[in-house]
Parts: sequence; C-alpha cells; structure tokens
Amino acid sequence: MLTITRLDISDARILIEGAAAKATEIGVPMCIAIVDESGNLIAFERMDGGKVTSVTIAQDKAFTAAAARKATHDYNAVCVPGNLAFGIHTEVGGRISTVGGGLPVSVDGEVVGGIGLSSGTPQQDMACAQAGIDHFLAARARA
Amino acid sequence: MLTITRLDISDARILIEGAAAKATEIGVPMCIAIVDESGNLIAFERMDGGKVTSVTIAQDKAFTAAAARKATHDYNAVCVPGNLAFGIHTEVGGRISTVGGGLPVSVDGEVVGGIGLSSGTPQQDMACAQAGIDHFLAARARA
Amino acid sequence: MLTITRLDISDARILIEGAAAKATEIGVPMCIAIVDESGNLIAFERMDGGKVTSVTIAQDKAFTAAAARKATHDYNAVCVPGNLAFGIHTEVGGRISTVGGGLPVSVDGEVVGGIGLSSGTPQQDMACAQAGIDHFLAARARA
Amino acid sequence: MLTITRLDISDARILIEGAAAKATEIGVPMCIAIVDESGNLIAFERMDGGKVTSVTIAQDKAFTAAAARKATHDYNAVCVPGNLAFGIHTEVGGRISTVGGGLPVSVDGEVVGGIGLSSGTPQQDMACAQAGIDHFLAARARA
Repeated sequence: MLTITRLDISDARILIEGAAAKATEIGVPMCIAIVDESGNLIAFERMDGGKVTSVTIAQDKAFTAAAARKATHDYNAVCVPGNLAFGIHTEVGGRISTVGGGLPVSVDGEVVGGIGLSSGTPQQDMACAQAGIDHFLAARARA
Repeated sequence: MLTITRLDISDARILIEGAAAKATEIGVPMCIAIVDESGNLIAFERMDGGKVTSVTIAQDKAFTAAAARKATHDYNAVCVPGNLAFGIHTEVGGRISTVGGGLPVSVDGEVVGGIGLSSGTPQQDMACAQAGIDHFLAARARA
Repeated sequence: MLTITRLDISDARILIEGAAAKATEIGVPMCIAIVDESGNLIAFERMDGGKVTSVTIAQDKAFTAAAARKATHDYNAVCVPGNLAFGIHTEVGGRISTVGGGLPVSVDGEVVGGIGLSSGTPQQDMACAQAGIDHFLAARARA
Repeated sequence: MLTITRLDISDARILIEGAAAKATEIGVPMCIAIVDESGNLIAFERMDGGKVTSVTIAQDKAFTAAAARKATHDYNAVCVPGNLAFGIHTEVGGRISTVGGGLPVSVDGEVVGGIGLSSGTPQQDMACAQAGIDHFLAARARA
C-alpha cells in the first residue's frame, strides 16, 4: 500500500487566493484551477472577465503539471519539432498542455497537486501560478 | 483468410519484466504497456511512482508502434513542419504518438505486438522499451 | 493536506491473481483492470481469449467503482428510467459503467482502489472481481 | 504466442457482396462494414443512397460483433433497465452497439471478423448482415 499526501480544499483556496491577487494586480482576470496529485480538480474559479476557453485550458495545465510532475513551460521547451518529446502536446486526448501557466505544487519535495492559470499571456499565466504557490508556501511557513 | 501471430499474456509479462528491470536500474519508475499486433492492450503495469499522465501515453506509444509497425521515435523524426508526415501526431484521435518510447515487437520478421514506456525522458523510455524486447528475445532464444 | 492510502503494484498483482484464478476455474478468459483510489490504472491483464471490447470496459468498471466508491451493479440498480439517477451511465464521457463487474477495493473502511472485470456475463464478471478482493484480503490477513 | 485466424480482403468483399445483394433485393441501400477479429475495419461500402449516420453505425456494429464475439441484437436483449448489463451501449466511447445489424463472422467455431449493416430498420439490417454471412459460408463450402 502507498501513502499519498494531497492538497485539501483549504489549501486549494489559498492557492487560488494568491493567484487571484496577482491577477488583480496585473489587471488580467484569470481562470484558476487547482488539482490534486492525481490531476483531479479540487477547486476552480473564473474571475469576472476570465475567458471561456480558459475554463478547460487552466484545468489541463493544472492536470499536466500535477500528474506529470512537470511545469507546462518545461514541456513547452522540449516540445520542439525534431526533439524526441515533440508531439507530447496531443497526448491524453489533448489534455497534456505545453502552454506556460501550469505548475506542480510541491511540499517537502513531493508533488501534492497542481495549479493552472489561463486567460493572459503565458508569461502572465506563469507569474500568477507562481504567485499562488508563493502565497501557499508562505501561509504554510506561518502555520 | 489470414493467419496472424500475436503475443500472449505470458510474452507480455516477460516484456514488462525486462522493461521494469531496466527502469529500476536507472531509478525511474515507469508505466509499461504491452499491446498485440492490432494495438489492443494485453498487459499494463504502473510501477510505484510512475506518472498518471503516462498511463495513457505508454498505451498510445505501444498502440502506435504495433499498429503502425513503426517505432514512435521514427515517427518523431518525420513529424517536422514542412515534412509531408507532419501532423501525424494528432491522428486517430491523438492516439498516434511521436514521442520516443514505443517500439514494435517482432518475431521472425513479423510484428507481433508493441511495447510502450512512459514517465522518464524519451531516451530513458526508449532504453527501457528496448530492454523489454531484449529480455523477451533472450527468453525465446533460451526456450 | 490530506493523507491518502492507495494500492501499490504488488497489491494490484495479487488482486489480478485472485480474479484470474476464478476466471480460469469458471472457464471464462477475462480482462482484469486494477486502478488506484483516484481511478487511474495501476495494472491490467487480458487473459488469452479475453475480449477486445473488454479492454476498455474492464478499465471503466474499475474506474467507476474506485472513483465513485460504488460497485457498478449498485449504479445499475438505480440507473432505471424514471429514477433520478438514470443517465449516469453516459457521464464522464461515457466512462461511468453501470454494468456489473466493477467493485471498490476497501481496506479498514477506506476505498484504496478498484477492480474491474469484463468478458463474461455481468454475474461472472462480478464473481471474479469479488474473488480478486477475497484473495487480496486473505493475503493481507496472512501478512 | 497466439495464432489468430482473420478475414482477408477477398473474404470481406464476398461478405459485402452477399449483404449488398440482399439490400438491393429489399430495396434499401445500406452501409456495410467488415472488420477483422480485433474489430478493425477491413472493407466498407456505402451503397448509393446509404445514410451518412450509418457510416459510423455500421462500423460500430461490426466492431462490437467481432471484438465482443456477440451479435448486437444479443446485446440489445440484455441491455434493458434493471438488467445487470444495462449501460453496455455507452461503453468504449459509445462504440458498443446494441442496435440489431451486427454479427460476428465465425469459421470452424472461431470468430474471424464481424459484419455490420446500417440504413434500414434493425430487422432489415440484420437480414442483410445474415445474407452476407450466408453468401460467404456458401462460397467457402464451394471452394
């Protein structure tokens, strides 16, 4: 039997809170998805003005980051024609995302979930995803 | 009428055994899928720590290798923009994999199945897939 | 944070072993799928003669049983026109199975995975799934 | 290793010929699909006037009949609310067909493929599928 550590709903809310604060700061309403370590959705918020397409994209980014334990921008870097990982973006029914904005969430060196942001540029999505993680880890450090 | 030769469940277990031994040796827990010559799954194992996304990817690599009778890294080599094979990775509902790690399994010059590995780098996946085939062919040579 | 208990690959092999023994006893080669508590595949075997359609059906039964924490025959009982649960069988892209043969695997009152059998009648599939669980629990009791 | 017997393209043409003759006789242009024992398409013809929806339905009927080794009308008989097999019609991404008109093709007691008809009533589809098989078996008996 395996013992797995996974984000709970309180953790998910804190991750969203941190990401949404950054999104508000940069003036880009976002879709924000939090998944557990298996890639299944725990919480989701579409800020007023977030894109409808991003409802799915944010979830796919979070899924990819958590279930593959790899940032979507890291997949982006290797998903280049001629590279042996090219084509990964169409796998799992197209759910593998290679668009920046999905990050694994790790605690004590173990992936416990993922966060995915979508509606801005990939750079904006990445910054907000990181802000969610920073806020979450800071809250843990204070606890 | 056609007469087809195909891996059986005992063959599949030997292929998995060889691939898993290599995965253990290099320290990368893998998802390992074995399919028959038509691409249908015979056996699958996710080693403890194998990635969830790789559950599907390993199966798609094995499917591609067996059903198209071509290593996925050979598809990768031709799936380059401007090349006439570009786009093959989105075909068959996205099940065609161009990511290294899927190999056809051949006996007496005939494809009898496929093996797909996923969770490492494409190079690691390829090495473990080959190790599965080497182990299987060695077992046949001894029999 | 949540702490989750989940089947490992050794547990999955024992579940398959018990189910396959029963399938052999009744003379019906089966497809056997074992998933973790989130519904993701850990191990699969298609016994020689198992049906190709059952490759997917066995996995969907195991997925449903584990991820919904409910036997597929219990969903069958309520999936009757006029009952408010009718239609559940088409949900999650059709992956929710209401055909008998999927059982959650529980340890100490907690669902830690699922087992799905397919290729026989639903009654045969159910008997083999239960045999897998009985074998697994007996092995745990001996350990 | 397993040895499998499967329809070849000449067999498939004979099956279509028999089914199409019956379809012409009853005045209903049909879609006719022939698959191998794994459910993969060998040959397909849409008679002039065959329905577009039937392009897929005929293939799914043939797939189901061959890969599950069971006539689609036999699945229909057990796919009744309250019966433990109810819900089978939505499995395998909805490809399992419970509509009459799909028959396994057997030679010497072994399923070697499947035939699926669609465009008429289920009774008409079934009659034409059977006519294809009768024609095929008669040709074999003469050979």
